[in-house]
Amino acid sequence: MNKTRDISVIGGTGDFFMARGIATIMTDSFEGDVYFRLRVDIKLYECCYTHRAHAPCKEMVFFFHDIVYNGENYKNATSAIVGAPDWGNRTIMSSPNNFGDMIVFDDPITLDNNLHSPPIGRAQGMYFYDQKDTFSSWLGFSFVFNNTDYKGSLNFAGHDPLMNKTRDISVIGGTGDFFMTRGIATLSTDAFEGSVYFRLRVHVKLYECWKLL
Amino acid sequence: MNKTRDISVIGGTGDFFMARGIATIMTDSFEGDVYFRLRVDIKLYECCYTHRAHAPCKEMVFFFHDIVYNGENYKNATSAIVGAPDWGNRTIMSSPNNFGDMIVFDDPITLDNNLHSPPIGRAQGMYFYDQKDTFSSWLGFSFVFNNTDYKGSLNFAGHDPLMNKTRDISVIGGTGDFFMTRGIATLSTDAFEGSVYFRLRVHVKLYECWKLL
Amino acid sequence: MNKTRDISVIGGTGDFFMARGIATIMTDSFEGDVYFRLRVDIKLYECCYTHRAHAPCKEMVFFFHDIVYNGENYKNATSAIVGAPDWGNRTIMSSPNNFGDMIVFDDPITLDNNLHSPPIGRAQGMYFYDQKDTFSSWLGFSFVFNNTDYKGSLNFAGHDPLMNKTRDISVIGGTGDFFMTRGIATLSTDAFEGSVYFRLRVHVKLYECWKLL
Repeated sequence: MNKTRDISVIGGTGDFFMARGIATIMTDSFEGDVYFRLRVDIKLYECCYTHRAHAPCKEMVFFFHDIVYNGENYKNATSAIVGAPDWGNRTIMSSPNNFGDMIVFDDPITLDNNLHSPPIGRAQGMYFYDQKDTFSSWLGFSFVFNNTDYKGSLNFAGHDPLMNKTRDISVIGGTGDFFMTRGIATLSTDAFEGSVYFRLRVHVKLYECWKLL
Repeated sequence: MNKTRDISVIGGTGDFFMARGIATIMTDSFEGDVYFRLRVDIKLYECCYTHRAHAPCKEMVFFFHDIVYNGENYKNATSAIVGAPDWGNRTIMSSPNNFGDMIVFDDPITLDNNLHSPPIGRAQGMYFYDQKDTFSSWLGFSFVFNNTDYKGSLNFAGHDPLMNKTRDISVIGGTGDFFMTRGIATLSTDAFEGSVYFRLRVHVKLYECWKLL
Repeated sequence: MNKTRDISVIGGTGDFFMARGIATIMTDSFEGDVYFRLRVDIKLYECCYTHRAHAPCKEMVFFFHDIVYNGENYKNATSAIVGAPDWGNRTIMSSPNNFGDMIVFDDPITLDNNLHSPPIGRAQGMYFYDQKDTFSSWLGFSFVFNNTDYKGSLNFAGHDPLMNKTRDISVIGGTGDFFMTRGIATLSTDAFEGSVYFRLRVHVKLYECWKLL
């Protein structure tokens, strides 16, 4: 005697090939046991290319630490400028807004915001500054883990408008424990000191998890 | 009394774990109401790693405009050579075929093919020329939107054989309105003037759309 | 009379929206035909973001061959250093561990390990060395096919710790015959001669295959 009730649409054929969804049924009118009329609202969430994410299948928070080579800090540096526009060089960020500078990095990952905490992996890859009128960058890199908790890698790519408090990039794949995964990483700048040091907080939210049987 | 009819395969166990598909049934023979024999052709489209795309879940067309820095056009330039082979430099494309030149760009996106139309976003990222015997490139970039229609980013990667009339690259992820999306972008060169200006038409076809609830 | 038997969970509503999975049923007790009690263990493999891969939907093995430009081998070279740290240059790998060197490549793909076999496609893209204390790199590239067997491209990205016997990178998308595909590529160094020549064996395992209808 509910006003509406949901039943499953479990498959279809022809024009409704492989469709799945929900049908909401309402009794529109009835006359005793003799006659009734139902209203059926069908909502199809088509198999395989429209997905609804309720919550991540896995969440993790990490920090990584970048110290750019400036001509004098080779021993401590974890990254180096390897490309620059014609008006730039490879020991000082180009002006304005570092536009065109490309940096390769080999940064420690820690579980807290302390550069000197034992690293649990490496963030390895590149970023470059790609906006003329403000600081903004593009990232292509991996988190590489080989410890008791995680073995494998997460691969990232995306736009990082670093003046925003938080920004999202894509998790485009993974290997080992992170086989075939996809998701979003929310970045925030936890600290920075000029162009020499910055620390990013990375909140990894995986929405597509795979298990290799 | 149809010759064939389709029913759904809605699930399975054991060797058919989670299988879904279509069974096509044919009445092979029958004798009155007493006996009949059915032929059943089962086609399983296994859950989760074989997908059939009928049509994009979202389609959009954009243009973006690239003006490469040539040593004299800093104000108008939207991109700059930041890497080049030993025989190249950062103000003229290297010869032959620009091979090895790497460009970082910050290009306006417009809805029509007019460079001076109000930009609705930025195409930011990089490309490099990666074929010795013809013009061909590889792209890694984002479309960045922050307007009334779209908020978020689309991330792209792939091979762009730019002498072809059309070519496809991958949409590898997205954020905001384009959370977790995947698809294909069909590129075509809408115009070019030497190595200084080119305009790409980008037909984005998303086949995997997600909604974060 | 089986101890346990599996039935399908084919859909759900409300809190179980779109759920699918397996229910394992056990007869817990019964008294003749009058009473029985079932134990039902329900395992939901939630639609769309938890996937179980049994086997690749497609597997292929290729080799590709890289000859780095060293200042004297332009004709034979298939790749060139286009970026380097301040302490490096573009004809010799930087020391130590090539850190920061970025290479653009246009390499032949063969079906066997012979550099002189007829190429069946090109591996085009870039890699850079991103570890200070050992040889390790990051790859962003495509396999480009245009032959009778395959037409289209596969796009790759990921971390390549090349001192390991095997290592996995991500297949992040594809076009043409490889429309929308995802998977893993297992790399192994099949041969190398100093920094001038290396040959990679690539075992492509696709776990997500798509068909455009």
